[in-house]
Amino acid sequence: MQYSQYMDSVDRLIAEALNEDIGTGDITTLSVIDKNRRAHGRYIAKEDGVLCGMQIAERVYRMLDSDVEFTAHFEEGQAFKKGDVLAEVRGNAVTLLSGERVGLNLMQHLSGIATRTRAAVDTVAGTGATIVDTRKTTPGMRVIEKYAVRIGGGSNHRFNLADGVLIKDNHIVAAGGITPAVKAAKRHAPHTIKVEVEVETEAQLREALDAGADIIMLDNMNEEMMTKCVQIVDGKAITEASGNMGERDLYAVAKTGVDLISIGALTHSARALDISLKFVIE
Amino acid sequence: MQYSQYMDSVDRLIAEALNEDIGTGDITTLSVIDKNRRAHGRYIAKEDGVLCGMQIAERVYRMLDSDVEFTAHFEEGQAFKKGDVLAEVRGNAVTLLSGERVGLNLMQHLSGIATRTRAAVDTVAGTGATIVDTRKTTPGMRVIEKYAVRIGGGSNHRFNLADGVLIKDNHIVAAGGITPAVKAAKRHAPHTIKVEVEVETEAQLREALDAGADIIMLDNMNEEMMTKCVQIVDGKAITEASGNMGERDLYAVAKTGVDLISIGALTHSARALDISLKFVIE
Amino acid sequence: MQYSQYMDSVDRLIAEALNEDIGTGDITTLSVIDKNRRAHGRYIAKEDGVLCGMQIAERVYRMLDSDVEFTAHFEEGQAFKKGDVLAEVRGNAVTLLSGERVGLNLMQHLSGIATRTRAAVDTVAGTGATIVDTRKTTPGMRVIEKYAVRIGGGSNHRFNLADGVLIKDNHIVAAGGITPAVKAAKRHAPHTIKVEVEVETEAQLREALDAGADIIMLDNMNEEMMTKCVQIVDGKAITEASGNMGERDLYAVAKTGVDLISIGALTHSARALDISLKFVIE
Amino acid sequence: MQYSQYMDSVDRLIAEALNEDIGTGDITTLSVIDKNRRAHGRYIAKEDGVLCGMQIAERVYRMLDSDVEFTAHFEEGQAFKKGDVLAEVRGNAVTLLSGERVGLNLMQHLSGIATRTRAAVDTVAGTGATIVDTRKTTPGMRVIEKYAVRIGGGSNHRFNLADGVLIKDNHIVAAGGITPAVKAAKRHAPHTIKVEVEVETEAQLREALDAGADIIMLDNMNEEMMTKCVQIVDGKAITEASGNMGERDLYAVAKTGVDLISIGALTHSARALDISLKFVIE
Amino acid sequence: MQYSQYMDSVDRLIAEALNEDIGTGDITTLSVIDKNRRAHGRYIAKEDGVLCGMQIAERVYRMLDSDVEFTAHFEEGQAFKKGDVLAEVRGNAVTLLSGERVGLNLMQHLSGIATRTRAAVDTVAGTGATIVDTRKTTPGMRVIEKYAVRIGGGSNHRFNLADGVLIKDNHIVAAGGITPAVKAAKRHAPHTIKVEVEVETEAQLREALDAGADIIMLDNMNEEMMTKCVQIVDGKAITEASGNMGERDLYAVAKTGVDLISIGALTHSARALDISLKFVIE
Amino acid sequence: MQYSQYMDSVDRLIAEALNEDIGTGDITTLSVIDKNRRAHGRYIAKEDGVLCGMQIAERVYRMLDSDVEFTAHFEEGQAFKKGDVLAEVRGNAVTLLSGERVGLNLMQHLSGIATRTRAAVDTVAGTGATIVDTRKTTPGMRVIEKYAVRIGGGSNHRFNLADGVLIKDNHIVAAGGITPAVKAAKRHAPHTIKVEVEVETEAQLREALDAGADIIMLDNMNEEMMTKCVQIVDGKAITEASGNMGERDLYAVAKTGVDLISIGALTHSARALDISLKFVIE
Repeated sequence: MQYSQYMDSVDRLIAEALNEDIGTGDITTLSVIDKNRRAHGRYIAKEDGVLCGMQIAERVYRMLDSDVEFTAHFEEGQAFKKGDVLAEVRGNAVTLLSGERVGLNLMQHLSGIATRTRAAVDTVAGTGATIVDTRKTTPGMRVIEKYAVRIGGGSNHRFNLADGVLIKDNHIVAAGGITPAVKAAKRHAPHTIKVEVEVETEAQLREALDAGADIIMLDNMNEEMMTKCVQIVDGKAITEASGNMGERDLYAVAKTGVDLISIGALTHSARALDISLKFVIE
Repeated sequence: MQYSQYMDSVDRLIAEALNEDIGTGDITTLSVIDKNRRAHGRYIAKEDGVLCGMQIAERVYRMLDSDVEFTAHFEEGQAFKKGDVLAEVRGNAVTLLSGERVGLNLMQHLSGIATRTRAAVDTVAGTGATIVDTRKTTPGMRVIEKYAVRIGGGSNHRFNLADGVLIKDNHIVAAGGITPAVKAAKRHAPHTIKVEVEVETEAQLREALDAGADIIMLDNMNEEMMTKCVQIVDGKAITEASGNMGERDLYAVAKTGVDLISIGALTHSARALDISLKFVIE
Repeated sequence: MQYSQYMDSVDRLIAEALNEDIGTGDITTLSVIDKNRRAHGRYIAKEDGVLCGMQIAERVYRMLDSDVEFTAHFEEGQAFKKGDVLAEVRGNAVTLLSGERVGLNLMQHLSGIATRTRAAVDTVAGTGATIVDTRKTTPGMRVIEKYAVRIGGGSNHRFNLADGVLIKDNHIVAAGGITPAVKAAKRHAPHTIKVEVEVETEAQLREALDAGADIIMLDNMNEEMMTKCVQIVDGKAITEASGNMGERDLYAVAKTGVDLISIGALTHSARALDISLKFVIE
Repeated sequence: MQYSQYMDSVDRLIAEALNEDIGTGDITTLSVIDKNRRAHGRYIAKEDGVLCGMQIAERVYRMLDSDVEFTAHFEEGQAFKKGDVLAEVRGNAVTLLSGERVGLNLMQHLSGIATRTRAAVDTVAGTGATIVDTRKTTPGMRVIEKYAVRIGGGSNHRFNLADGVLIKDNHIVAAGGITPAVKAAKRHAPHTIKVEVEVETEAQLREALDAGADIIMLDNMNEEMMTKCVQIVDGKAITEASGNMGERDLYAVAKTGVDLISIGALTHSARALDISLKFVIE
Repeated sequence: MQYSQYMDSVDRLIAEALNEDIGTGDITTLSVIDKNRRAHGRYIAKEDGVLCGMQIAERVYRMLDSDVEFTAHFEEGQAFKKGDVLAEVRGNAVTLLSGERVGLNLMQHLSGIATRTRAAVDTVAGTGATIVDTRKTTPGMRVIEKYAVRIGGGSNHRFNLADGVLIKDNHIVAAGGITPAVKAAKRHAPHTIKVEVEVETEAQLREALDAGADIIMLDNMNEEMMTKCVQIVDGKAITEASGNMGERDLYAVAKTGVDLISIGALTHSARALDISLKFVIE
Repeated sequence: MQYSQYMDSVDRLIAEALNEDIGTGDITTLSVIDKNRRAHGRYIAKEDGVLCGMQIAERVYRMLDSDVEFTAHFEEGQAFKKGDVLAEVRGNAVTLLSGERVGLNLMQHLSGIATRTRAAVDTVAGTGATIVDTRKTTPGMRVIEKYAVRIGGGSNHRFNLADGVLIKDNHIVAAGGITPAVKAAKRHAPHTIKVEVEVETEAQLREALDAGADIIMLDNMNEEMMTKCVQIVDGKAITEASGNMGERDLYAVAKTGVDLISIGALTHSARALDISLKFVIE
């Protein structure tokens, strides 16, 4: 599977979540349900959306009990409608009930991100703009939240402070201007990584271009100014619209001609999608 | 400090978040800012709220560099106004810039929870109802999210599946009814833990009371029915209102006489509070 | 299996014990025994007892070598006689000899606890009293020691300081009396958890009952006084006999009418049961 | 301090024990005791013994709160009498009460081992025999249990299967006799490590000596036979008495002239010494 | 200090090395040297070189015993001559002897890398070429080995497979040619990261340039061909010479005009520098 | 397999190496190669050598993807010639390319050690001398590097400071001479472990022998002096030649009659053997 390389990170997150939620044992289920009872569960969509994290929900059960049978009816990234049965699970009833919440929560959270990303991608379809995420992610979940953005059709911005150079106002002040800041970054950072500069004015933009910036972040600009900046850049750098994009008219932004629109809200305020897991005790 | 016992959990979360965000090094800051420069930063509230997590933001910097000076101007749980300076930090500029996001994100997230909890608590003031949280928390962050609920004035529901018995529909089906389910729970679960039963009808309520339930969860009822149920219980058990309470009129619910109102939205959909960290490079 | 949810904790304990005991390699066995030799071993009871931990002994070998065949002849909780063959194991001789001690020690320790618990349970049979454990467990082994108590027929007291309220003398002094202590606990602790108070006199007992204590711990009382206290309580709270119960006449204690008898000695001084593992090198 | 090199192992054990015992928080103490109250505690011996583990009890509190003051009145290995005040501790009342059990349990356990070891050492004083331990230790606690044996005046046998060769019956069978087993061990094991052979008969003893065994374990022999074996060995190897030595007359065993007496009971069945911690809330 | 952000990684490496080397205790030193003796040690260069890792050697001692005094006489990156005293250390004799090897080994290894890097940098001085490292590092030590390259005056190539795109022969085959491979990389990889293509012929070079490659790796070419390729590129991409550069005439390679020379041998076959630690027992 | 007991250590090393090298994902391979493509790879020797670590290369792929097929054509310790196909691997192309470097590097490193050890063993064949390693190993890799020495035909010296006594110059100074140092070691160290003394002169040698040293390390002596020392020892202790043996004429050293020759260079400067992994994308 495409993100098999993330499984180590995912497994640690699941183990932590299970320890946190089950603790020393699900005393209700262990007290009330016979240890040999079996159950059958169906994941049902309570609203329309884009599926993400099904494999993780399956993995939760695998870690509790290798005998659980899990059958997916939709693929990662596939759109579904309210009422669709997304997957089915069958196995020991104690296991199924005890692990329900951890798997469901992760799947709801990731599907929420994928669904919101897909909506943004659809909004700007045809404009040439690409939707990207930010570092505003939940501690410990960055790998899987950025995976959800890709599943939703978006692209990933830098993963962390080590794999992208982004020169902001404080860096510019400390370096004594945009030009020396860009020069310092080009000299010290790995040559494999592009240099991005955040600009707020046309003067800053022109200085950044002259200094050789590879990417220009147009921060908190209205569409008019953004359009002008894109014309100044004229293909000599990648342009990125940024700043509260979660609350902007994305189509209008995209029409300015920017290459990228980065949206922190994709990960830090996507609503969990409503998916339920209904059991039949057998 | 009151939650010193959580520091092991908090330290691991911070370490994970720093590894995730800083990775092999903040290449922008290391390239652009002289390693001996110092900076001074001020945490400024961009909206009104209740403070929570200041100690964690301080701890982030302590873990990066023991020489950072951190001065809090507000206490945990204290209300603040837009524009207030919540705290100040002074130290090595590279350290301050590199750790900015991790500390800020945790403080914004926890203050968001405390603020939303405080609002709910204020809404039901004088009714006798207590606001409580649920298990709908972010994986890996349950300890600190439940701490934020307490800081906001709420109380904690069970921490996990091991420290509370909550008999739901599937348990009732598997056990063959409410009565055998409660009996089984009273026989097998530790005697220190109360038995809670989720009911949806008056008949279920009466059976649960007769079976000796300690707590009755009134699930998805309107105020009229809730009022009737509270009268039936008549002090023989604790009553808890539950089911989408994040979108209900909390004062109306509280006026029904229920003892507890549990709100998943306190933790799983509280908006991050807007707090910024403004630096001066010295 | 019933305690499958504890496997993460068990696996870490086994890994730690194997690292501790095998270190960088069993140099005797590796030097002396051909790496392709196979062996067959039989677990033989050297005294009567109740079996517990067989699954853990099997798990030790699984973690060393997935090809070991392990056949249990008795179930968890089943009584056995001196001379019974409890289980058989077959596999690579180096693996079997190197892992012998770790598996055996855990099984002997847990069977000792289950056996001692079963004896206590049998002693009070017919009186209505329940045998429970305490927090006096071996560091790192609480989960499996409390599992052994359940396998022996006992019940578990609170697992740790977080899932039960137990107000002792120091708490009473600090709170300014039993009444304010109970009130504080009812106000601050999760509503799902009962409040237990330790009492040494009749006056304390009456104050605790009036304050609304859910459980009364009768500490270090003789049978006469215990009987009187049970009569005073008269079903309005759960009663627990405590204090050196490992050296008391349990039947006499149970006849006083107490609901629970908590015995620290179940876990902190149960003698390891004598079980040997006899090999035949094939 | 002499065992500073073990602190990493000790710290992990303490962290595990605290997580296990405090869990998500000591709800009784947090509910009942004001977070700013302070307390003063005294560790009082309830019986005579030899002190061991005081530093670990202090370390428990250091890990919870660096402001706790801890004053020891006795040194590691020093004998004390019933009623002696072994140490005093002063600090935040919540911290002191919440960490009480973990520190006390470790100190009681280790002092029990040191006390039992000292008794054995005193019993054989003047005979030239040395008391040594075995691998029959509690999983996860081998390092500190063997430290307690040294504090009590005993010596350590091999730490694990990697740092000592001990050829037992199964090894002899697999190798085709004592002579080939000793040869194989001398050829394959590191040359820094001596070869020990377990013998049960005079014939085995003579074969082991001829094969060049460095140490002879005299297993389950009576004093008469042991005396004879020691005479046969005549200084050509180290002799070790073994087999249920916890229940033997150690002076009689020592008088046979053996060099070492190994006693599993030192670690696996030493009774916890009774030490109490009495608090005054300030 | 500049690499404070790596301390978490460094601390884990040191802890692992200490556990590995000291194990359950340095039995020679503990047996032979009085636990209160103190010692004074001097780090003496046995050959010329560039210092790297002094802070790590100090950190080793800090982790064993916070009372060790460590005084550096040279700075990271400073050149030294045979016979120079690089640093001095004073403290408990047992601690100093037990930790000697771990600290020394790390300092020797890193100084070896820094020294070899400095030599390469000096060789190409004035040509405009930059010396960079590769992913051919020791498992678990990549962070500190790449730090040593920077201390020696080199630059870092990508840290791992996630922060740089490098299209090699297998990727080209799988993608159906250089052009589709570059297109796919530009479409899917984060926009912050440049696309590098490995070429072996002039035709491949021209195709890569046309496809928009940001960096061209000239693999295993002689100086003549390299010169021609650099002329073809003509500043439209960064050029990198690669392939057994550890055994090439670096000045000749640099004179071809390439921007970067990547040398795996900097990390995977730098000889440990000879530094000794001489003690005086006080 | 013979070193199955090391798998825990090996698995942690591999996991660390994969995390380090793959990070958040191999962006080149994921971007360029279809996730369903399959590939076939052949490990080809680029020079003659002795194979070691094949199982570890296989294990790397198993940890990434359990469906990879791995077929070894040579056994651990078997000699191979340039051009031989050592093993083949078949599976998902993304997995095979992403894990290539980690597996290959470990196999090259260990085969380099085994090859160099085999050469040393062959050089001294027939002399009776044994080749042994030292503690000069790579941090975190001691277990597998010492395994490689055994695979090459050498023996292992002590694993760490806990399983061998080696009295060096500083210990002698601190103890006040060789005799008191040896006495102290015999009194305090476990009786299972031999006492080795490093000597540089004939006088020291005679004192060490008289004090009862089990092993004599002849440090930095020429062959003439070594021969004389061996004659003085005359079988009363094991003799070990030490000191820059990686650059000595091993046959000449062995002919002096020493029992052991310890060579740090076996592990700390063995050249990685050149093995390549050639893929065919299917």
